[in-house]
Parts: sequence; C-alpha cells; structure tokens
Amino acid sequence: MSLPIGFTDHPADLLRVGQGFSLAAAPTDAAPGYSGKKIDGAETLAERAPVLAQLQEQLFAESRFGGQKSVLLVLQAMDTAGKGGVVGRVVGAVDPQGVKLKSFKSPTEEEKAHDFLWRVRPAAPEPGMFGVFDRSHYEDVLIHRVHGWADEQELERRYAAINDYEQELVDSGTTIVKVMLNISQDEQLERLSARLHDPTKYWKYSPTDLDERQYWPAYMDAYQRVFEKTSTEHAPWHVVPADKKWYARMAVQELLIKELGGLNLQWPAGDFDVAAERARLKDA
Amino acid sequence: MSLPIGFTDHPADLLRVGQGFSLAAAPTDAAPGYSGKKIDGAETLAERAPVLAQLQEQLFAESRFGGQKSVLLVLQAMDTAGKGGVVGRVVGAVDPQGVKLKSFKSPTEEEKAHDFLWRVRPAAPEPGMFGVFDRSHYEDVLIHRVHGWADEQELERRYAAINDYEQELVDSGTTIVKVMLNISQDEQLERLSARLHDPTKYWKYSPTDLDERQYWPAYMDAYQRVFEKTSTEHAPWHVVPADKKWYARMAVQELLIKELGGLNLQWPAGDFDVAAERARLKDA
Repeated sequence: MSLPIGFTDHPADLLRVGQGFSLAAAPTDAAPGYSGKKIDGAETLAERAPVLAQLQEQLFAESRFGGQKSVLLVLQAMDTAGKGGVVGRVVGAVDPQGVKLKSFKSPTEEEKAHDFLWRVRPAAPEPGMFGVFDRSHYEDVLIHRVHGWADEQELERRYAAINDYEQELVDSGTTIVKVMLNISQDEQLERLSARLHDPTKYWKYSPTDLDERQYWPAYMDAYQRVFEKTSTEHAPWHVVPADKKWYARMAVQELLIKELGGLNLQWPAGDFDVAAERARLKDA
Repeated sequence: MSLPIGFTDHPADLLRVGQGFSLAAAPTDAAPGYSGKKIDGAETLAERAPVLAQLQEQLFAESRFGGQKSVLLVLQAMDTAGKGGVVGRVVGAVDPQGVKLKSFKSPTEEEKAHDFLWRVRPAAPEPGMFGVFDRSHYEDVLIHRVHGWADEQELERRYAAINDYEQELVDSGTTIVKVMLNISQDEQLERLSARLHDPTKYWKYSPTDLDERQYWPAYMDAYQRVFEKTSTEHAPWHVVPADKKWYARMAVQELLIKELGGLNLQWPAGDFDVAAERARLKDA
C-alpha cells in the first residue's frame, strides 16, 4: 500500500502496539511518520476525507446486497485527549446514515445488574455500518482497576472475555480499529485550564475531571496492562500521540482508510437486469 | 431575524405550507428567495454550516445541565428527491454525537403487529439531540393511502394521531421541522436514469422505484392531503423545491438555523464554582 501524502511511514505500522510496547516510552507530543506541519496536516485531513467517505459508502453499499462486513472504531483516552474531535472531524466526514455511534457513560443500574458486555453487544455495528465506541468495554478494565472496583481475578476474567468478544465480532465480519489517544499530563492541564477560562466551554468541564486526574499514574498502569492483555492479532491497539490534535485526527483517519482499503470493497453489481431496467425506464 | 446571505426572503416564510396550499402549484425547479446561482449556493451552504453546528452544540450543551429542548427534522420525499444528500451535507456538518438519525424502512412483522406510531416513539430525540427521521410516520398515510392499505376512516384516525403525537413532542420540548423535498416527475426520471448508467450507483437503484413511480399522481394526492391535515401551528410543513439539489440543501439548512436560532440557546454557566476550580487546577 502506498503511503498517504506527507507520510514517510504509515502510522498503522508506527503506532501499532506490539510485543514489548511501553506506554511510558510512547510519545505524546510527536507526529510519527509525518513530515509536514500543522497547516499541512489540516490540508491532508481535508484531502483524505473523501477517500474515507467513499470507502464507507462502498461498505454500506455492499451490505445492501448481502455484504457482511462492518468496521468498529474503539476510542479510549484520558479526559480532554480529543475523542470528541476525532468523532467530529474524522467520523463526521462520512455519511451519517452509515455511522452507528455509541458513547458509553457511567452504567445505569440496569446495566450494572448485567455482565459488563451486556450493554456493549447491541452497540456493535450491523453489516455495512461504521461503528464507533466513544469509550467502551475497556472502561471496565480501566476505571474499575484504578478504583479497585474489580479485583485481579475479575480483571483477568474480563480481559479474556474481551478478547473472546472481539474475536466473535471479527469472525462475524467486523474489522476492529482500537485507538488510545495519548496525551501528556501537562497537555491535559492546559486543556482543562482552557475550558475553565472560556465560558463557551464550561459545559465540557466537570470537577470530577480533576478528581480522576489525580489517578493519572494508576490509569497509565491500567492502560499498559490493557495493551499487554488485549492487543491481539485480530484486534490490535494503536497508541496515537495526541498532544497535537491535528496529528491525532490525521493518524486515526489513515488507520481507518488502511483497514477499510484492505477489505477489497466493490460497488455492488445490483440484483437486477440493468439493460431491462433501462428499457423499462424509457416507458416510465 | 436578519436574512441569510444571498436571500431576498427567508425560505421559512416562502416554503411554509399554509391555508390554501396547493402542491400541484408548488415549484420544483426554482430557488425561492435566493438571488444567487448554484456556485453561490454551495458557498452559502459551507459558510452557514458552522452556524448550524454551533447552535447544535449549544442545544447539546444545555441538555447537560437540565435543558429539555431538542429538534426533530422530518424528511419526506419521492425516491431520488435528495433526502440522503440533505442528511449527508446538512446534518452531516454537525457533530455526530448530537445527532440521532433514524431511517424508516418497510416495517418488520413485529412493527406491523403494533400501532403505526409504536416504532416511531423510541426514535424521537432525547433532550439536547438533533433528531432526523429519514421517512417517518407519514409513510403510514402516504404509501398506505396510495395502495389502499388503510381505508379513509383509518387514515383520518392516523392524521389525528399524528397531530396528537407531534403535539406531545412539542409539549415535551421538541421543535419539529417537517420538510417535503419536492421534485418533478421528469427530474426523477433523470436521476433514476443516472443511477442506471453509473456502476457506482447501481446499488441505489431498485426495480421497485419504477413500480412506485407509476403511482405518482396518487402520491401527490396523498401528500396534498397530508399537508391539509397535518400542517399545524405546532408542526408546520415546508415544501422545498428539490430539482436543484444545491437549493434544497441550503433551504433546509436555513430552516434549521432559523428554528434553532429561535430557541434562545445559551452556553450553560456550569454547576461548579469557576474560581474554586481554577484554584484547584493550579495544584493539580
């Protein structure tokens, strides 16, 4: 596969979590594989949007004629890391009719009464759909580990259940793209501060953001463990440096383009006789 | 309210279905109230997209602090009239996190076993959401009337039920924007033909499109009746000329901007002590 414009290496290769990956050593304020600057990145994002949009349309079109493929983008990150921006700018550039977006909040009482995957399953994309999880089942091995809501044995059970569940999705035709947006603690401070100094952004701020921030090292440990346990062949993780929002968006866009591009999507031939329909049309 | 750029009259005033409205007399290939050309319209659409996006964000933000308002765009039209384009280009320009889109297909057996509004109710937007119905409960008084699947008495019951349902929505905080995209029979022929001469568009074509086309006059009668029965004060219809796709998109965008703009949306003040949080941040 040729490299996208401006890239010296494909972000999929550079950002994929493999054996021996260390989150502590992963950059936050870098643009791996990209030779351009912020202004170039914005241009690249705009130029590549129609490529992603067409791939999504083909995915959707195939499903209308029996295609079983779907895509699921799983987004995880610390607060303010830019999940919303990725959803708005990257996912937002494809046709909303083909997108199934689920934002996972604190579970309801009903959800809590079930196994942690219970609320996740119905949110998975149907054939042809581009699913997006804004937060996900990984919260159940992240915040739950950080706050001790699940013990070690239960966490082990959940890692295994997640891998099994994702294998099921893959077996049924879903391509899973897992992304952790990686910001530094300093960058988060800047962004929280920005929210507290702009009345149009107060609504995005919650005092609990600062509470959770105190657990930063525990979160990083929990993420490291997640990567070790669940960056599988069938559903690998990608850790995307996210201090530069423009890079993170571009990188996620390229990850999606690469995965969708690898599905060998085709425009469906249709299940009708084209010549006969053209003839009917003449009399219509 | 000042007029949007390029407009000599507001499309909301020109396109609203009032007393004595006649669909037969309504233009399809016109750009009411707009002084520009296609190229200007594309520019206007792009320029106004951030205005709509910000209004949507405020709507969403308010709901995070108890706001009960929502918006529902109801889209009805003959095949190929451009519902998909409106969803992609107009709705697609706002943050997907705030959009709840429902495409109504032929009802399932389960749906058929219930009253026609049963499947519609859960699709309505929650507070803060921008709901979109791509087709809607109006199919139950359109295709059902055309094919005689409901008799006159049942149709009358449904018109009344629709008005009651929409009143309920309005009473609970939903602003309803009902739009019929109005294309000519000739324009539909062109668009069907285009689909049948472009292999990347075969998937959008179905032989049943031509079948339904034969009922054109009956559909126009059914729409005329819908407008007479359900263009209410609380949820008026707008008939948008749609032979020019660029005009239809721009007009729907302006209808939405006007309705959202009229809600007096405000950025929430937040439910925390800003000064105290800023102080906490310094030590975080």
